[in-house]
Amino acid sequence: MKHVTSRDNALFKHLKALATSTHQRRKAGQSLLDGVHLAQAYVAALGQPVSCVVSERHYDHAEVAPLLTQIDSQRLVVLADALFVQVSGVANGIDLMLVIETPAGHLPARIEEDCIILDGLQDAGNVGSILRSAAAAGIRHAFLGTGCAFAWSIKTLRAGMGANFHLNIVEHCTIDMLAPRLAVPLLATSSHADAAVFDTDLRKPVAWIVGNEGAGVSAAWMERVARTVGIPQPGGLESLNVAAATAICLFEAVRQRRTTP
Amino acid sequence: MKHVTSRDNALFKHLKALATSTHQRRKAGQSLLDGVHLAQAYVAALGQPVSCVVSERHYDHAEVAPLLTQIDSQRLVVLADALFVQVSGVANGIDLMLVIETPAGHLPARIEEDCIILDGLQDAGNVGSILRSAAAAGIRHAFLGTGCAFAWSIKTLRAGMGANFHLNIVEHCTIDMLAPRLAVPLLATSSHADAAVFDTDLRKPVAWIVGNEGAGVSAAWMERVARTVGIPQPGGLESLNVAAATAICLFEAVRQRRTTP
Repeated sequence: MKHVTSRDNALFKHLKALATSTHQRRKAGQSLLDGVHLAQAYVAALGQPVSCVVSERHYDHAEVAPLLTQIDSQRLVVLADALFVQVSGVANGIDLMLVIETPAGHLPARIEEDCIILDGLQDAGNVGSILRSAAAAGIRHAFLGTGCAFAWSIKTLRAGMGANFHLNIVEHCTIDMLAPRLAVPLLATSSHADAAVFDTDLRKPVAWIVGNEGAGVSAAWMERVARTVGIPQPGGLESLNVAAATAICLFEAVRQRRTTP
Repeated sequence: MKHVTSRDNALFKHLKALATSTHQRRKAGQSLLDGVHLAQAYVAALGQPVSCVVSERHYDHAEVAPLLTQIDSQRLVVLADALFVQVSGVANGIDLMLVIETPAGHLPARIEEDCIILDGLQDAGNVGSILRSAAAAGIRHAFLGTGCAFAWSIKTLRAGMGANFHLNIVEHCTIDMLAPRLAVPLLATSSHADAAVFDTDLRKPVAWIVGNEGAGVSAAWMERVARTVGIPQPGGLESLNVAAATAICLFEAVRQRRTTP
């Protein structure tokens, strides 16, 4: 166990850099998980972090203790309260965070399973919510194109609620990287769709492409789409949040596969 | 048409109060709609606003012109550019906003139609997304309990994308106000549910109760629930964003009703 009380400490400076800069996080290949819930989800899924940082005041907290028993003691860092608040973005929470090596995604040679492809999705909350829905639906691969929100930002991680640790996430994907590997049909939602999602056979693996909040799926990707599907909207608005629309499609597939004998 | 160039102008002061203070918005019974999309949605659904405010630089903008033709000229206010930026929260957008009377919701004597009840939902983005999904699904009533995010805040309105104008929204609802009026069964999602949502008959009107992001539906409301429904999650995480889970349930009802002969 290390005890850090000085703002000149190298580890504290590193934490602060990870907390405040996406650039630093990408450069170091490390991410910061803020709060007990995310930390528990990480340890349960992937094991030991690089380090587990807790404040002096919450070192003995009842919700922290069960987690600390699972962490190798040499990875534990107790940080002075005044330093912890400079690093954490969670107010009124429990002062605990993990530093982790950002899991490296791998691009399969042939994509034969369900997957989601995010194309220019800019809102970190939407990216996190979609990762969460995908993981819950049993999808294991998420491919993010350039222009998407960073999958390992504080905000995306918070919205993902641990889904990141159950997915193979590959960032900076281009069409040229992905399209030749796709061995499953590519589907997109559209308001001028070939058929309703409820009438589309989703029992076999598919790739879903999800477009930008405003502009939708880019023209270059749209050319690769095998089928467009519509979500019937009896309210007549033709307007759903992109994360809500994706959840509806992913769980319609869950429904169809569930009722298959 | 009025032309406002002074920061001492009473209308400018009023706009600034509406833009920066939820308290002022509640007190005045007025809301501010920021951006062309929301303004168009309002005019199409509900007609004339109290006033339509446009900046000098965007008065002749191609996307503004079609909207201005629909606004009574005495309701039009052209605001000096330097004043507009102090009021608008939208950077890099088109400088247009509407001041509207916040539509007054009405509590039906007997609730016989589909509705959603929000119970302590704190995140404005989630409230907006759920209102949007509900309106798209053809639901017409949204009842918000105390403790919910304000339905007419800038952030809720932005996430709602115009859904607010198609719903009867009643805020500050208590159990005592709502429960005796409910003539439809009350449903909640739960991870320990009576049945999967896909196996639950949703062809007749229902009331959905949606709980707080962390704590779920309150115990007092849970006692009134007729059936709990689960969303099968083959990924094994038992974790969905509340707005995603609500969208799945609302559109499962759309699916079931659509296939009814």
